[in-house]
Amino acid sequence: MSTSEHVESDGQRRAGRPRTRILTQKRITDAAMRVATHEGYDSLTMAKLAKALGVTPAALYNHAHSKRQILRWIEDRLMAAVDASAFETEPWDAALASWARSYRLVMKEHDSLVEAIAKMPVAGATDTLAMYEGVASGLRRAGWPDANIMPAIVAIESFVYGSAYDLNAPLDIFELGDQADAAPTLAASVAAHTPLGLREQAFERGLDALIRGLGAAAGV
Amino acid sequence: MSTSEHVESDGQRRAGRPRTRILTQKRITDAAMRVATHEGYDSLTMAKLAKALGVTPAALYNHAHSKRQILRWIEDRLMAAVDASAFETEPWDAALASWARSYRLVMKEHDSLVEAIAKMPVAGATDTLAMYEGVASGLRRAGWPDANIMPAIVAIESFVYGSAYDLNAPLDIFELGDQADAAPTLAASVAAHTPLGLREQAFERGLDALIRGLGAAAGV
Repeated sequence: MSTSEHVESDGQRRAGRPRTRILTQKRITDAAMRVATHEGYDSLTMAKLAKALGVTPAALYNHAHSKRQILRWIEDRLMAAVDASAFETEPWDAALASWARSYRLVMKEHDSLVEAIAKMPVAGATDTLAMYEGVASGLRRAGWPDANIMPAIVAIESFVYGSAYDLNAPLDIFELGDQADAAPTLAASVAAHTPLGLREQAFERGLDALIRGLGAAAGV
Repeated sequence: MSTSEHVESDGQRRAGRPRTRILTQKRITDAAMRVATHEGYDSLTMAKLAKALGVTPAALYNHAHSKRQILRWIEDRLMAAVDASAFETEPWDAALASWARSYRLVMKEHDSLVEAIAKMPVAGATDTLAMYEGVASGLRRAGWPDANIMPAIVAIESFVYGSAYDLNAPLDIFELGDQADAAPTLAASVAAHTPLGLREQAFERGLDALIRGLGAAAGV
């Protein structure tokens, strides 16, 4: 029995109970993230989401007026999971590193959503604004000039998004096999690492370089 | 008249000429990039690609044995467009910056392919290997130890991928409107920039921090 059939028979058994009562922001967001994870964010449509929820498109539109609205809920869900709390207790550089590491792991778990999140305006997303405010005010308290805060946040975010992909890339991504002769310096450079070691060193060294360099540019 | 009809009537007019002769690596790659750009890479299937080319799936499989093979051709097409030639003429730090800027613009034009490219093994992709070999050997000639080369390349690539998305994000991505009161430090930090200025400063400052920091770690 499909979810859709279940809802229909349920609706028949309890006449008068609106079928749309089962829809909440949480349930819609859960279902949208499942569809996006399994089929890709581009494949997520309101019609497909309604089907996954076992409701009519009209019922779904009563709760969420657009795919963009649902993406905002997804964005808030993900950003609420990113831990920016170290700005309350740690020096700014350790706090930035802690935030970036948490952000990378959250996006790694949902990498089919990275592109959409990277292009999503933050207005209207309460938890997303709270996360950015936590980072921005933490940097300002540490003496960062306002004009240096957003370039640093955006630069580290770009790095985090690409690093999340790398974390899901196959470990043999730079394995050359019998083509090592065609790219000998690349082969020797790759051979200096284990695949896992390369991945972590790329992230940690890159993050360290960004934090030091952006901090130096901010004069802190 | 659809492309498919055209090919069919063409095949009828010239009996004996194999219909698959019209397929070349270039034509297949062109069509695959068009489908991926318009519908997303996840939506690209061999069946859909065959249809776009106006041939049968069997004819397509005679030329490309898998979607992975076609992604390798796409990867080679994109990486051949990334300009690593500055390593021949410029100091390593200017060459790295020039390479990263070119890479960002190429991926910006094809950002539906960023995720797939970020996870694609390089083996078997001739032009891709040549690009990496150009960067790796340029850094080695400049005195970089082998163990520092790949972490730097991977870190800068991650940053480039995220920056390509940012380049296609709407300019109002950090526009808070009437929600500025909810995130006052964020609002003030955003207000310190024009949207275009923020985007370019985030990229250029981040790139500078990465190049200096990774170079310092390499001892050059």
